[in-house]
Amino acid sequence: MTIVVDAMGGDYAPDAPVEAVRQAATTFSDTRFIVIGNEEKINGVAGASFPGNVTIHHTDVVISGDDEPVRAVRRKPDSSLVMAAKMVSDNKADVMVSAGNTGAIMAAGALVMGRLKNVERPALAPVLPTFNGSGVLLLDAGATMDASAENLLDYAYMAAEYTKYVLDIENPRIGLLNVGTEDTKGNAVVKQAFLLLSESSLNFVGNVEAREMMAGCADVVVCDGFVGNVVLKLAEGLGLGLFAGLKEVMTESGLVTRMAAGVLAPKLRTLRSRYDWAEHGGAPFLGVAGGCIKAHGSSNPRAWYMALTQAHKFAANDVLAKLTSAMVARS
Amino acid sequence: MTIVVDAMGGDYAPDAPVEAVRQAATTFSDTRFIVIGNEEKINGVAGASFPGNVTIHHTDVVISGDDEPVRAVRRKPDSSLVMAAKMVSDNKADVMVSAGNTGAIMAAGALVMGRLKNVERPALAPVLPTFNGSGVLLLDAGATMDASAENLLDYAYMAAEYTKYVLDIENPRIGLLNVGTEDTKGNAVVKQAFLLLSESSLNFVGNVEAREMMAGCADVVVCDGFVGNVVLKLAEGLGLGLFAGLKEVMTESGLVTRMAAGVLAPKLRTLRSRYDWAEHGGAPFLGVAGGCIKAHGSSNPRAWYMALTQAHKFAANDVLAKLTSAMVARS
Repeated sequence: MTIVVDAMGGDYAPDAPVEAVRQAATTFSDTRFIVIGNEEKINGVAGASFPGNVTIHHTDVVISGDDEPVRAVRRKPDSSLVMAAKMVSDNKADVMVSAGNTGAIMAAGALVMGRLKNVERPALAPVLPTFNGSGVLLLDAGATMDASAENLLDYAYMAAEYTKYVLDIENPRIGLLNVGTEDTKGNAVVKQAFLLLSESSLNFVGNVEAREMMAGCADVVVCDGFVGNVVLKLAEGLGLGLFAGLKEVMTESGLVTRMAAGVLAPKLRTLRSRYDWAEHGGAPFLGVAGGCIKAHGSSNPRAWYMALTQAHKFAANDVLAKLTSAMVARS
Repeated sequence: MTIVVDAMGGDYAPDAPVEAVRQAATTFSDTRFIVIGNEEKINGVAGASFPGNVTIHHTDVVISGDDEPVRAVRRKPDSSLVMAAKMVSDNKADVMVSAGNTGAIMAAGALVMGRLKNVERPALAPVLPTFNGSGVLLLDAGATMDASAENLLDYAYMAAEYTKYVLDIENPRIGLLNVGTEDTKGNAVVKQAFLLLSESSLNFVGNVEAREMMAGCADVVVCDGFVGNVVLKLAEGLGLGLFAGLKEVMTESGLVTRMAAGVLAPKLRTLRSRYDWAEHGGAPFLGVAGGCIKAHGSSNPRAWYMALTQAHKFAANDVLAKLTSAMVARS
């Protein structure tokens, strides 16, 4: 098994991915890790002596967050990101992981790896933290803005396989994001998707409202990429904003306030960790013909390590083959 | 000026609306208040001696939260909700306020009052609390699931008038909810709406992401009713969930914990109040031919009072005439 890592993407590159690879290569000694990026910088990361199952592939070319995704993928074949996708496409690696430009990762997946048979639209599938701590796989989080009802059904079939083999949920509950729980709710696409999902062989639990989704009432929730992206950014923004407000309150001046804050701090950290996306790994880009995981842009070494663990499981359980069979079977 | 109140809708009916009307009728002694509902129950609310500018209209018929909206409005003409809408339609009142079944309020607005000239789709426009405390007017929050780009432009024009005359913002910043700030982002409808808004005479500030919306980067944000409803429920659900988790931490057993919690409690209440929808009044249903305000279903007397204050301002500034002129001018 081989995992290829784009070491140059994300807010804490190359330090965070390098540190995480060092740790993951020790944990998963059966796996080869290829780290792509500036060799000097990678070697320069303090204490970055890699175990023997890690190799570095040098490149100086990087796709930045400001690059226009499709153009960047086409014009920068030697970038760390595109090289990683090419290695998967050439069967030199099973899964790639990058914390770089989300649009470029999706473009590299679609253009370099291609799509799985019977998949019209691949989907980005992050785990959204929920109040019960379990998390919910939300897809599509932004790959396709105008998805059809058939696309939504594809998302559900792919998510069911991924959830089973990577998140260890045997018969995942699939929900449809909607504005009410009644069968007749929603816009035209969602109403049609409801019918398709109802007739499918999936464990479809019906329409799910955003509030109930956050309470963990489904393992997977499907929606189009426009709604999914808005939901993802709102949930993240609200969480960050509320905890920032809390921190402000706790660090106000005054000895008594600071003493009280000191007592409650550990409990609040526990509360916060429940909503921490870092614990849930990255977002797989499901439907492309290779393993492709987008780690969060602000991934610290811990979040990177979780994304590598996820990549390992994706490869070890041959999830790509499972996705391929599922999409062939349902056609 | 006359404000008509459906006293039978919402979680705390009739107590909360009755208490709020008593207070509002004293504050706004120039205004007539008509309270519709079960007279005995209304009079039975402890200490509910109304000032002289309040009259009660009795009815026993109520539309419940479970009633199918359009059918309920058609079959229950004597319900408190439909009677309130009829009074506005008959010019016996300027504005109605109800905390009842949202779908039925919108159906009563559209079917009983009718639409303003040049408005194809009315829109529900609640204020979403933002981190800076200012709030953002979000519309449409659920009236129209498949809105066109033209509909979104109408929403913006109506919201600009409402925001100017009710929220006292002279030249409101209008944003378009989107998945990125670049001009070319979004689904087909949103891309088209971007062009229409750019060419309009409005103070259009461009695309707005959910995260920035919560930071208060625009006074008004337009989107279709499907997305708006999901956003509204997610924001509310996340806020409630996070504060519930916080409360749990603060009330854990242990003397030291409870003492520390006691010190921080007032500060946390201040933090919480910043995200309190109750302070922002109800959601106007913009585009119907009469004043129509939907108070939150779980409105307490304070939230009800704010909704009545808002109704008073709507009537006092003749916002209906402003909306009418704006929609005629832009056609």
